[in-house]
Amino acid sequence: MESVDILINNGWVLTMDPEDTLIEKGAVAVSGERIVAVGEDLVLAASYKAAKTVDARGGIIMPGLVNAHTHAAMTCFRGIADDLPLMTWLNDHIFPAEAKLTFDIVYQGTLLACAEMILSGTTTFCDMYLFEDAVAQAAKTVGIRAVVGEVIYDFPSPNYGPVEAGLKYTEDLIEKWRDDPLITIAVEPHSVYVCSPELLQKARAIADKNDVPLIIHVAETEREVVIIHVAETEREVAEVMGKYGRTPVAHLADIGILGPNLIADHCVVLTPEDITLLKEFDVKVAHNPESNMKLASGIAPIPELLDHGIIVGIGTDGCASNNNLDLFQEMDTAAKLHKVDSLDPTVMDARTVVRMATIDGARVLGLEDTTGSLETGKKADVIIVDVNRPHLIPMYNVYSHLVYAVTGSDVVTAIVNGRLLMEDRVLTTVDVDAVMRAVNQIAQDIT
Amino acid sequence: MESVDILINNGWVLTMDPEDTLIEKGAVAVSGERIVAVGEDLVLAASYKAAKTVDARGGIIMPGLVNAHTHAAMTCFRGIADDLPLMTWLNDHIFPAEAKLTFDIVYQGTLLACAEMILSGTTTFCDMYLFEDAVAQAAKTVGIRAVVGEVIYDFPSPNYGPVEAGLKYTEDLIEKWRDDPLITIAVEPHSVYVCSPELLQKARAIADKNDVPLIIHVAETEREVVIIHVAETEREVAEVMGKYGRTPVAHLADIGILGPNLIADHCVVLTPEDITLLKEFDVKVAHNPESNMKLASGIAPIPELLDHGIIVGIGTDGCASNNNLDLFQEMDTAAKLHKVDSLDPTVMDARTVVRMATIDGARVLGLEDTTGSLETGKKADVIIVDVNRPHLIPMYNVYSHLVYAVTGSDVVTAIVNGRLLMEDRVLTTVDVDAVMRAVNQIAQDIT
Repeated sequence: MESVDILINNGWVLTMDPEDTLIEKGAVAVSGERIVAVGEDLVLAASYKAAKTVDARGGIIMPGLVNAHTHAAMTCFRGIADDLPLMTWLNDHIFPAEAKLTFDIVYQGTLLACAEMILSGTTTFCDMYLFEDAVAQAAKTVGIRAVVGEVIYDFPSPNYGPVEAGLKYTEDLIEKWRDDPLITIAVEPHSVYVCSPELLQKARAIADKNDVPLIIHVAETEREVVIIHVAETEREVAEVMGKYGRTPVAHLADIGILGPNLIADHCVVLTPEDITLLKEFDVKVAHNPESNMKLASGIAPIPELLDHGIIVGIGTDGCASNNNLDLFQEMDTAAKLHKVDSLDPTVMDARTVVRMATIDGARVLGLEDTTGSLETGKKADVIIVDVNRPHLIPMYNVYSHLVYAVTGSDVVTAIVNGRLLMEDRVLTTVDVDAVMRAVNQIAQDIT
Repeated sequence: MESVDILINNGWVLTMDPEDTLIEKGAVAVSGERIVAVGEDLVLAASYKAAKTVDARGGIIMPGLVNAHTHAAMTCFRGIADDLPLMTWLNDHIFPAEAKLTFDIVYQGTLLACAEMILSGTTTFCDMYLFEDAVAQAAKTVGIRAVVGEVIYDFPSPNYGPVEAGLKYTEDLIEKWRDDPLITIAVEPHSVYVCSPELLQKARAIADKNDVPLIIHVAETEREVVIIHVAETEREVAEVMGKYGRTPVAHLADIGILGPNLIADHCVVLTPEDITLLKEFDVKVAHNPESNMKLASGIAPIPELLDHGIIVGIGTDGCASNNNLDLFQEMDTAAKLHKVDSLDPTVMDARTVVRMATIDGARVLGLEDTTGSLETGKKADVIIVDVNRPHLIPMYNVYSHLVYAVTGSDVVTAIVNGRLLMEDRVLTTVDVDAVMRAVNQIAQDIT
């Protein structure tokens, strides 16, 4: 008998390995940070002696979900303004609120987001925001896996000031967090409409030099595309930004930004040529259906991207445009949205969508050797979904259940990097009452 | 001090009364089946002595939700077949499974649905299915409010046999359940494509004679409209059904079926003339966004219906096409779907959507004097939403929170007709473990 730290048994093991192996009565053995075995319950019981056994009680043992795009600290602005035109929402509500951000607000807001994510089964998230060292510290404190990067744009930031300082801040973050077991730093220019070609190229150079992801919002709305492409309807912005005369993706190709470590968030408005370019350069895409719907940005052509073999993950975007971080609900919406958009119920089948929220999300973030599936040797990022609940009876198909019936509140246990962060819905690394009090106070202070 | 049975206090009271009154520190007093007072916490505390006090702990005290269209017992088929073309799904999976239905299966499936609905804040549902006396009995046993009616069509039913027996079954149900405090019987011909004009007219006559709702699926998909309207693409069905030469709504107008007590489910494919007719006859509409998305039926023109002043409620449809009965998630989807469909983030604002799921849902069912809002004299159908949870912090706007952040699992307490059906998420009238076992057994038996 080999000794291990944790043995999770008595559940359906959904591995999301290359063969989509599903074990009806399975178990997962964890030693230190890593998965050391995945297999039949009886086999593992006979092979491993565990310091701690976690009984899945017939539930689903699966990889923790990967939130491929969010702004975690925007929990502080959850529902601060809704149902408004995009520019009113941004200019009259979000930007004024964000001008009041501090390191501590971002830290507390991220702690709350981490609590919410673990409680709803997310074990890895990719963040873009301000004061990202606070995000990294909060994620590290909680013990969740994160790809984080400071947002950079041509105008001054409430955090670092002028843009050159933003590049320096990013390089310092990379240095500070290098080789951390949980935190990866990315280079994150905001978008083509607020970043000059020169800034984008500097960002690309930093990402290449340090072998880290480059992350950018791309073609999120028709409006953005108009600014870049035609420069007709938004004249005052067009004067500044409308000079490229091509689509955002073509523009990024033209100035050398596309590449396999580029994560393009949103990608709502794409031409067939854009899709060909994304595939040619192996660009990764983060799909955010609920935010795109709520802000009325449009519907990203995800089935076409998948048909082209482009790797797509799923993100929630920030809590001001969603307004939660529940990736199970996001999967449900993603599957249904593209069916009705294409009038084809066979697109975005449940297994494809679960893959997007797990292993393909990990691929998007460049973490496919670390997380996103339950395979021997990978880091142990595991969740358990309780299916013995009225809204989850009966269960005919595990994938379908996860997408169309389960919500985040059905997740009972979460392990990240071999550490139990939640057991029977009790968080082990966050004082959740203190964090809720802190963010309620922040909300009072900023309004 | 007046004695009352229940005093719910210490919460935000969202009344959904005609003035949308919202009381920050409010309370609701219940005596017998009815609400006897709604007001400030301190005022009610000084006026009423309660046999039982329910502390909302700062949560939202609101009317129980109204599910305007479902097939409750289809919980038995939750996820039995997904991501398939509509005809494959119906002919190869749903119809064969439904051929095995019995009174007991429908009874157990409905008990499970009632448990799920109460756990997610629904206190009234409108059902269309087979063996509806079982549905009425299950609802009555659980203590939930329901409008139920046996589905009727031109071909024989697994329940009652030939169509004439279905009309008789419906009349018997009306007689049996007349004046029940919880159960209302409706007359429910399935749709224009499986009901002859004569059948529809007989159904209308029974509804009129007994002053009960008439309920029918209308224009659920393009395919159905083609059958009725053009009769081109589905030749074999067209031979039988394609003779009307007009839209389903125009056909119903032509044969005298439209009227203020008609509930038209779905209404996905409507012409401007159809919308004018629905308004002219004060027809009520039940919107089922998630089912329409999942089956790739299309997007109902709900903002246009609302602009015309047509009363619209929200339904989940059955669990085989959703796959849950959570109206909070359905509200979220409804709000977001129409924003992205219209590319206008201001349509379907949160308050409108909450109204659709409460008081307007009650109007759709003809129960606006009974339920759907918290007002003195109405029946006490009340739920409490706990907002002291990480994904519900902070709260800037109650309506926005309910639509975009709350899910059914945040509902902690439910009262229907003055009776506590759930307290702190424990159901008081259903042995939920026994029901889950029974439906799991049914699932094994039918597959």
